Amino acid sequence: MSIKVQPYTATPAEPVSEAPGVVVRWVIGEADGAPNFAMRVFDVPPGGASPFHAHWFEHEVFILAGRGHVKTEQGDLPFEQGYVVFVPGGEMHQFVNDGDDVLRFICVIPHVRPGAK
Amino acid sequence: MSIKVQPYTATPAEPVSEAPGVVVRWVIGEADGAPNFAMRVFDVPPGGASPFHAHWFEHEVFILAGRGHVKTEQGDLPFEQGYVVFVPGGEMHQFVNDGDDVLRFICVIPHVRPGAK
Repeated sequence: MSIKVQPYTATPAEPVSEAPGVVVRWVIGEADGAPNFAMRVFDVPPGGASPFHAHWFEHEVFILAGRGHVKTEQGDLPFEQGYVVFVPGGEMHQFVNDGDDVLRFICVIPHVRPGAK
Repeated sequence: MSIKVQPYTATPAEPVSEAPGVVVRWVIGEADGAPNFAMRVFDVPPGGASPFHAHWFEHEVFILAGRGHVKTEQGDLPFEQGYVVFVPGGEMHQFVNDGDDVLRFICVIPHVRPGAK
């Protein structure tokens, strides 16, 4: 296991099956020896969105480019470049691109572990 | 605990005692209910650097602005905006600003837990 330094674009972009047009790069993960959590970079095209869903794990997000909103059960929360978003586990959420350009964000999640709550 | 959406600059910048001129914002952390890891944003001024040190926990880093290098025991690894850096626990490392502008990066670390390895 060693220190890794590379452009985020060196990681191949993969389609996200539940979100047409959305791609994800797993830029730091278990393959790098990351023991606790993974960093991903998502690109959402204009008019695109992630699924409206909930899951046991949290999201820690930083908006790199573009603008949009998080759809929640309490209403829509707008964001733009330079915003942070924390989604606790169990909360319904959806990232929606409201702009004319790509929405790009970092999303960090814990590794799935036996006994994880 | 609820979904948080705000500019990263809404979090106060704190000085980093071991690194003159460097400031950190804990943009998502235990105060938000984050259960596993914390997201910080560092600003390193031109000519500045983080300490050259090692610790038990890993870093997952994304370079938001500027350019520089990671000093390691295996040599210097250059980076610029859009690079990712993974530093495993136990590896000596230092983030150095080589540019004329601020070096800004996200750095995610696990919470300290009893029994953490």
